[in-house]
Amino acid sequence: MTPETLLGYPVVVGAGVLEQVAAHARRAGLERAVVLCDANVEAYARRVSAAFAGSVPLRAFRLGEERKTLESLAAVYAALGETEADRRTLVIGVGGGVAGDLFGFAAATYMRGLPFLNVATSLVAMVDAAIGGKTAIDLPAGKNLAGAFADPVAVVADVEALRSLPEAQIREGLGEMIKHAILSGQAAFARLEALAGHAFAGWPWSDLVAENVAVKAAVVAGDRLEGGDRERLNLGHTFAHAFERASSYQLTHGNAVAVGLRAAGLAALAHGTWSQRDQERLVRLLLAFELPIAHVGLDVEAVLAAMRMDKKRRDGRLRFVLPRALGEVACGIELEDAIVREAVEHCTR
Amino acid sequence: MTPETLLGYPVVVGAGVLEQVAAHARRAGLERAVVLCDANVEAYARRVSAAFAGSVPLRAFRLGEERKTLESLAAVYAALGETEADRRTLVIGVGGGVAGDLFGFAAATYMRGLPFLNVATSLVAMVDAAIGGKTAIDLPAGKNLAGAFADPVAVVADVEALRSLPEAQIREGLGEMIKHAILSGQAAFARLEALAGHAFAGWPWSDLVAENVAVKAAVVAGDRLEGGDRERLNLGHTFAHAFERASSYQLTHGNAVAVGLRAAGLAALAHGTWSQRDQERLVRLLLAFELPIAHVGLDVEAVLAAMRMDKKRRDGRLRFVLPRALGEVACGIELEDAIVREAVEHCTR
Repeated sequence: MTPETLLGYPVVVGAGVLEQVAAHARRAGLERAVVLCDANVEAYARRVSAAFAGSVPLRAFRLGEERKTLESLAAVYAALGETEADRRTLVIGVGGGVAGDLFGFAAATYMRGLPFLNVATSLVAMVDAAIGGKTAIDLPAGKNLAGAFADPVAVVADVEALRSLPEAQIREGLGEMIKHAILSGQAAFARLEALAGHAFAGWPWSDLVAENVAVKAAVVAGDRLEGGDRERLNLGHTFAHAFERASSYQLTHGNAVAVGLRAAGLAALAHGTWSQRDQERLVRLLLAFELPIAHVGLDVEAVLAAMRMDKKRRDGRLRFVLPRALGEVACGIELEDAIVREAVEHCTR
Repeated sequence: MTPETLLGYPVVVGAGVLEQVAAHARRAGLERAVVLCDANVEAYARRVSAAFAGSVPLRAFRLGEERKTLESLAAVYAALGETEADRRTLVIGVGGGVAGDLFGFAAATYMRGLPFLNVATSLVAMVDAAIGGKTAIDLPAGKNLAGAFADPVAVVADVEALRSLPEAQIREGLGEMIKHAILSGQAAFARLEALAGHAFAGWPWSDLVAENVAVKAAVVAGDRLEGGDRERLNLGHTFAHAFERASSYQLTHGNAVAVGLRAAGLAALAHGTWSQRDQERLVRLLLAFELPIAHVGLDVEAVLAAMRMDKKRRDGRLRFVLPRALGEVACGIELEDAIVREAVEHCTR
């Protein structure tokens, strides 16, 4: 099944597909639009608004990981008010994961919900954040704590946007791509291995993004509101979030996912459900993609404490998603403390 | 059909039903709960938390019409964080319309949605605000501008809570009850007429609340997300909102609805779709209930400007819901300016 069939909305992937945004607005029967963008991609966003026949207001916001706040939400609401957006106005968000989360949440709640179109401009947004209908802002008490499940009318991922990204930002998305490859199986994993050593400019981005969208869409479709199968997407993330927090977010999410995948593999190895050979393949791929496999010097106790904090919020018990083989994961695994500790120790030295 | 069948969740109405809250939480399979309340009804809310076997945290907030803000939302989110609420925690909101809107929106968005149970303690909340799954906060640009459609797991309306309310607060709900009676028909309207002159203490509140819930549930059920039939509930409200705004909210919503119903009747009369006899019956009932039928001295131009502001946000045209007969309304009516002006003039002198 196509992502559109699985998700209920189209995900348009390709080079130059940016120009299709206006057509999608028309197809959705929406008369008006407003473009909200990350200030970093304002020039790009202007191309979106210029593709409309009439004049479409555009508002740029200074975003960044630390600005996904209630204050930013208030500013977005104010912009929607100023531009006289109403329920027949298409809100077009242009930017990376932060932009999609913030603009998507604002659209989902302004007047109790305006239609939203997500133009993803970062690799993380294209392969992960923009797919699945999750929007959120951070609260002082934690990341992504307030939000909404709200499907966009469409997601547009123009891979030409990746050309202008610094390599470090491309790398932010590679951890999630490796995670998707583990969920997907041998072929997807081998395909990534074959790309190692090639410059990003030569990667077949349209195909890669489309395949990652397909993997995520298949998981999300069966579990829109989280409670079952979607847990698979947490592979490596219980560790990753703890590493991020314990580093006071000096470790970016993308790098934390890389370390977290290695840690999940180490734990699965100790738990007896993952092979040494697969773990070595995983670590080789992480290294080949120049992703970190440890955050040296991080306090082990701080990581473990962050992990307990995280899970205590949910049900008081630590439960992990672990790899079993390429194409197979196990969910809801309660690990012995010693196994968790050892995996963390390995990834902090 | 019962409100539960229509809405998909139970609305428990009666004297002493407060004690059933804990049972509803158990029925919903929820292990934990947190009680959020308007500080004005904290003693009442303590009875809710005391009805649970284990300890249930309670947080009280100073609310009021002017506090349905993003700042209050941040405070509610913080309380949910402090009490370690998660997706299996039932959020119980106790209070009037403001409390239900604010706590309901917080619950709908915290962790992308916690289950919510609405304990309505004001007449307006019982007969109107708590029914229909609409939650919201105000923004600087306007009232109820940010919110969510989010059904509660149950609504509990214990009419004993009405006993302690000042008469003015009871009266806040009477306008909506008259509106529902017009939507409902002769019998409901005559029933209200028969109550005129009797002290509130002697009114059959359980029956009255249950009937109002049934009227609203029937309208809402056919149009959960607003777009069609739900517009009927706007009877009198285009005028009412303009009166409220033009008075800088010195006119309360309940009183504005009373004036707005009269204005809608006057406009319908001039439009030729409502009888003089029915209009006189309406005005007599408003007066018998000691509700205002005008806000003397209000600037007519300010009211008309407020009305244009309101509608411009939606589609640039003024459209009204007008009464046709008891039990029949007409939606989407575009009135001549002169008719609107005359109705407003009558209601400001």
